[in-house]
Amino acid sequence: MTVTRDSVGSLVGRIGPTDAPTLLLGSHVDSVRNAGRFDGPLGVLASLAAIERARSSLDEGAVGIALIAFADEEGLRYRSSYLASRAFVGLFEPAELDITDDDGVPLAQAIRATGGDPAATSSPSMSFGNVAGYVEVHIEQGPVLQAEDLPVGVVTAIAGQSRGFVDFIGSAGHAGNTPHHLRRDALLAAAEFTLAVDDAMQETPGLVATVGRIENAPNVGNVIPGKTTVSYDVRHQEDDVKERAVDALRARAREIVERRGIDLDWRHLQDHPAVPMAARWRRALLEAVEGADIRPFELPSGAGHDAVSLAHVTDVGMLFCRCRDGVSHHPDEFVEYGDIAAVIDVLEQLVLNAGSEDAR
Amino acid sequence: MTVTRDSVGSLVGRIGPTDAPTLLLGSHVDSVRNAGRFDGPLGVLASLAAIERARSSLDEGAVGIALIAFADEEGLRYRSSYLASRAFVGLFEPAELDITDDDGVPLAQAIRATGGDPAATSSPSMSFGNVAGYVEVHIEQGPVLQAEDLPVGVVTAIAGQSRGFVDFIGSAGHAGNTPHHLRRDALLAAAEFTLAVDDAMQETPGLVATVGRIENAPNVGNVIPGKTTVSYDVRHQEDDVKERAVDALRARAREIVERRGIDLDWRHLQDHPAVPMAARWRRALLEAVEGADIRPFELPSGAGHDAVSLAHVTDVGMLFCRCRDGVSHHPDEFVEYGDIAAVIDVLEQLVLNAGSEDAR
Repeated sequence: MTVTRDSVGSLVGRIGPTDAPTLLLGSHVDSVRNAGRFDGPLGVLASLAAIERARSSLDEGAVGIALIAFADEEGLRYRSSYLASRAFVGLFEPAELDITDDDGVPLAQAIRATGGDPAATSSPSMSFGNVAGYVEVHIEQGPVLQAEDLPVGVVTAIAGQSRGFVDFIGSAGHAGNTPHHLRRDALLAAAEFTLAVDDAMQETPGLVATVGRIENAPNVGNVIPGKTTVSYDVRHQEDDVKERAVDALRARAREIVERRGIDLDWRHLQDHPAVPMAARWRRALLEAVEGADIRPFELPSGAGHDAVSLAHVTDVGMLFCRCRDGVSHHPDEFVEYGDIAAVIDVLEQLVLNAGSEDAR
Repeated sequence: MTVTRDSVGSLVGRIGPTDAPTLLLGSHVDSVRNAGRFDGPLGVLASLAAIERARSSLDEGAVGIALIAFADEEGLRYRSSYLASRAFVGLFEPAELDITDDDGVPLAQAIRATGGDPAATSSPSMSFGNVAGYVEVHIEQGPVLQAEDLPVGVVTAIAGQSRGFVDFIGSAGHAGNTPHHLRRDALLAAAEFTLAVDDAMQETPGLVATVGRIENAPNVGNVIPGKTTVSYDVRHQEDDVKERAVDALRARAREIVERRGIDLDWRHLQDHPAVPMAARWRRALLEAVEGADIRPFELPSGAGHDAVSLAHVTDVGMLFCRCRDGVSHHPDEFVEYGDIAAVIDVLEQLVLNAGSEDAR
């Protein structure tokens, strides 16, 4: 392959005819701390293996392939999202170069230290005029395929995500001597809200709603909690369903604090709209799955992936690979080698079909 | 005064005849984090002021005074209760020396670092053979005296207290990709339990029940909580009422984890029985209050105090001082200076009466 490196360090390997439409394959090669080995690299390496198998056809076919290994998807160091794939498609904001990591190192300096070019980060890393689409393989990071007894599944859409924090502000007080009617216990309000978030998930089909983080102050056994903060993370494939759910939770939080005589600070941090997969690539992936003698199955993605960035410039598709017990972002993350073989089979089919389809 | 320092760092100042019965006065000088200035030190300093006023009588009187400033009552660093006063009366367990703080420092090392002697902590800090009693002044840490418009009140009993931690153990998982029926969310169970503790307080007259501390892991916004720990603190003046309430909460925790398919670790840490004040010192304090021209008034204490430890070796009494809005364990904790003057008046009366009474 002809390999180039873009402004932030993502690698691109090209193979096949250069004047034909290009199918982008790829995923990311970074990880979270204390992570597993599959979240990201599996997609890059399985794509590489599939390209190697399909190699001879590619030279003659009607489609070129560009395999991308994105440098930073998890965004751990700079609290970013899809940093490398946003830079790749031209969505990177120059102001982000000034963001500093925990040691005060600006992003521009970190990019330079790894041989990148901060000045070029705002320009797309390639021209997308003759690109046929982007197809990403990723571990599911959920238990659905395992429950379906399937090695792979085709993604329908990446759910939209809203997240933020809610501060419940009451009054600290001595746990022994404060009668009930004089208490303004922040943790009780946070507990009610946490259960309400779960109720919302149960009441709305397809909604995913989680309180993952809680901070309580002063957080001492014999002191009535004075301030409690919880996170919320709400996801749905349809943005309006998600927005109605967040609005309902906010109204619920208001009702809780009014009844309890305490204060509320609703800090909405981020809204990512849902990203539907292109019908064209859903169909192509389902065909490739059937071509590999696997039962075709579709499922949504609750997590975001680099395909979110690529959807801004081309049609995107995603293939999920079964991972053991849905465990991810943890050293126990595991994918059976047979499932990796299935992924390679499907991708090989996809590449071969794409080449012949475009030739038709 | 003749001042000595005991094995854990409590200070004892003695004054008056050494062969006469000794009246112990005192309180503690440590505090919780982000606390007020009165919880503890007020009792030590007001006693010192009263002793100074009664000084000339003491030299001739029939009672000696020992003023004690206990080094650690709140137990923040080692999650202990009445550490210093238990060591003072010989109730300290040698095994406690191995308990570590959040930084892994064993208690023995911390005692040594402040000039104490871990090896001597199990022996009483003085002989209680000729001790007449222990009288402690403390802020009420509740709103009752303010409602009664009184500067001081005489304590009838210290409520019994049961406390411990409950671990709810589920499974961490990706917040985006784990469907509801496959979640084992520990925080949801903890939230339900926290609300159940508050329900118990509302349902049982005189019961005081609080979740003050919560720890959640991994405590990240997009990860389903895998393990959540909450504290419980349950108090009542009648031990059997308190025990029934704790049993009911434990049954409730079991019901919650069974329904949610998660695990429970109920770690009951401490049971302090209710401690009635000695009739002798209740009477003496009421007389002293009347002698200071204040309406005599009695009330229970929902909070534990060093008097609990001292009750193991001598007759105890307590005087509560009004604090603004019942606020304690908070920087807003406040006592009007006129109320401190009233405390000193009452204590001076008590010391003078004790001297003359024993002389009679």
